[in-house]
Amino acid sequence: MALIVQKYGGTSVGSIERIQAVAEKVAAARERGDQLVVVVSAMSGETNRLIGLAKEIEEHPSAREMDVLVSTGEQVTIALLSMALHKIGCPAKSYTGGQVNILTDSAHSKARIRKIDDIKVRADLDAGRVVVVAGFQGVDDLGSITTLGRGGSDTTAVALAAALKADECQIFTDVDGVYTTDPRVEPKARRLSKISFEEMLEMASLGSKVLQIRAVEFAGKYNVPLRVLSSFEEGEGTLITFEDKGMEDAKISGIAFNRDEAKFTIQGVQDQPGVAYRILGPISDANIEVDMIIQNIGQDGTTDFTFTVHRNDYDKALAILNGVAQEVGAREVKGDNTIVKISLVGVGMRSHAGIASSMFAALSKEGINIRMISTSEIKISVVVDEKYLELGVRALHEAFNLSAEPAKIG
Amino acid sequence: MALIVQKYGGTSVGSIERIQAVAEKVAAARERGDQLVVVVSAMSGETNRLIGLAKEIEEHPSAREMDVLVSTGEQVTIALLSMALHKIGCPAKSYTGGQVNILTDSAHSKARIRKIDDIKVRADLDAGRVVVVAGFQGVDDLGSITTLGRGGSDTTAVALAAALKADECQIFTDVDGVYTTDPRVEPKARRLSKISFEEMLEMASLGSKVLQIRAVEFAGKYNVPLRVLSSFEEGEGTLITFEDKGMEDAKISGIAFNRDEAKFTIQGVQDQPGVAYRILGPISDANIEVDMIIQNIGQDGTTDFTFTVHRNDYDKALAILNGVAQEVGAREVKGDNTIVKISLVGVGMRSHAGIASSMFAALSKEGINIRMISTSEIKISVVVDEKYLELGVRALHEAFNLSAEPAKIG
Repeated sequence: MALIVQKYGGTSVGSIERIQAVAEKVAAARERGDQLVVVVSAMSGETNRLIGLAKEIEEHPSAREMDVLVSTGEQVTIALLSMALHKIGCPAKSYTGGQVNILTDSAHSKARIRKIDDIKVRADLDAGRVVVVAGFQGVDDLGSITTLGRGGSDTTAVALAAALKADECQIFTDVDGVYTTDPRVEPKARRLSKISFEEMLEMASLGSKVLQIRAVEFAGKYNVPLRVLSSFEEGEGTLITFEDKGMEDAKISGIAFNRDEAKFTIQGVQDQPGVAYRILGPISDANIEVDMIIQNIGQDGTTDFTFTVHRNDYDKALAILNGVAQEVGAREVKGDNTIVKISLVGVGMRSHAGIASSMFAALSKEGINIRMISTSEIKISVVVDEKYLELGVRALHEAFNLSAEPAKIG
Repeated sequence: MALIVQKYGGTSVGSIERIQAVAEKVAAARERGDQLVVVVSAMSGETNRLIGLAKEIEEHPSAREMDVLVSTGEQVTIALLSMALHKIGCPAKSYTGGQVNILTDSAHSKARIRKIDDIKVRADLDAGRVVVVAGFQGVDDLGSITTLGRGGSDTTAVALAAALKADECQIFTDVDGVYTTDPRVEPKARRLSKISFEEMLEMASLGSKVLQIRAVEFAGKYNVPLRVLSSFEEGEGTLITFEDKGMEDAKISGIAFNRDEAKFTIQGVQDQPGVAYRILGPISDANIEVDMIIQNIGQDGTTDFTFTVHRNDYDKALAILNGVAQEVGAREVKGDNTIVKISLVGVGMRSHAGIASSMFAALSKEGINIRMISTSEIKISVVVDEKYLELGVRALHEAFNLSAEPAKIG
């Protein structure tokens, strides 16, 4: 008998019919002998409807009252799912975040979970009930309702799984797992049966929307095995787990990419201590996040300083840099908002040399010019012109043979 | 500085505009120097929408989960009203029933309040905040959400007023007070500035829809002065209070009536012990409520047994009685579902003789035949043919001079 925490997002519970389909899935898992805790989001559209009501009154409503308002969305879903489970003969009991003491700090709308009291949940599980918990919400020291912010229901599920020492935390979503790359770009993309936490973190931070990065971090911190599955199709999904001998023997697990990039180069900067801070300080002060940073030393005692930001911040950053360039005596500021980032991700990279050179060779063979390179222990990222995105991804997918099922070892 | 509990029903908070209007009313009262606790219902239509969702899943959903579901309705309102108060510069804080520990028994959907913990509310009032509380809901010993059933928000308001020893509990509704009779029947009906609890209880039990009978009982039990006012018009409304020397010196306060009556007479019943039980037992077993009961002894050692029921139960009761009549050897069962009940209500009745004879004289003068009479300490009810309802009410209103402002004494 395994203890499983399942999480269903807003689309998966978006109508009465879908809630009934989720009930069938949950009841079937219980029939197989597992103990089940089910975390649900608000029905899709409901949170936006509630926010709309608030905005009719006040553009910037009190964060505390906003949490009181939007937390009703998940509360509706837990009641309806419990009813749907009862209807098919499956004993179930619903709890709001507050009722199972999901204790958070008081940062309304972006609260962080501090502690979960699992006594009630364990008692219900021991009595043979499915426990249905409202995602995204908790309660602070004062008893005020809090919400966890974006991806909060994933975090609730992982936190509950950690508190209960669950055997697995299953995130049901509208995709059936994590792929070697986006199948819309490379139709030969293959679903991974396993991926490591570190790889998943890199994939998530690079824009893969399957899981919220905070939930992945949380799962990694508390050693919770995470599985991503489809709400709508059968399948094993992708297990996000710890690197071990049973894992796929691949050097590279996947190819992530990010279209939302823009790049700046400040040319001819005097190569003096503190110059990087003088350039990036004003950028950071304007709340613009910087991603890759590269500095090359030129021949004449000056240096070229290059970095990337989110494409939405391009205009704001360019205006700041034009001011800064004069102050630091730079020759020129060059901006480019038609670039993208492509990254190879794989824990196998650590032990296999030559990945970078294979990558550069594959891109070069297609005539793709690399504008920037940045590496980490399990990732190599390159910046290229956006017109090469699809070609680059497919070339790398082919070069590293990602469509093929890997041989199992161990 | 007075401490006032105000309650606004579903119609009064039925749209964003109306919620904003309520906020204005509340803020104005606070400006006048009062401390305010505001109890609100779900926006009109919202509870039915939620029940509709549940019914799509299950005709008879779990009462516990139903309470989890419908209690979101009031939770939405408290958040929106608090935002609307903030918007106009009035400090306010919202609480669900559970958050202010409105402790009830576990009778889901018809729970009764056991205790209210007023610590949080008092702290907010002392800090100058308006406290906005979700009506209709509480929490049981296990922390499960409960709802109070019909009129529950009125009961929440009265219970809070009792716990806080409030100076007044104001029920805002779509009428501007309690009238001597229904103004749709007698246009000369006059709003009462005061009415006693006992009179209000009789008026409510006779079908006057202004206040829920449970809330009135609760207010009487805990000596909470209740005031009924209009959400939409200015005015003093009607104060429901204890009989005292300052009250209106009227013999009669009002005329109530009930159109939903039906009457049965079992004729020629042998006048033996137990015969009343043999007739009414099967009626009661069928969950039919009996209102007035009259038994006259005939000349021939037999008796006529007459009683009234709700008109909806007429067919069911008639079928049962036709069976019973044979068993008890009765001559005939006569049913009539075209009758109504008219009642005079007034605490003054206790000390003034002759009210009954004045009543009968007034009806007789209009040629109205009285079919049944029943009296209590502060009420005289008569059953008449339904065609005489309006005529009878107006004749009595005139006979007891109810349109005139009473002289004040004391």
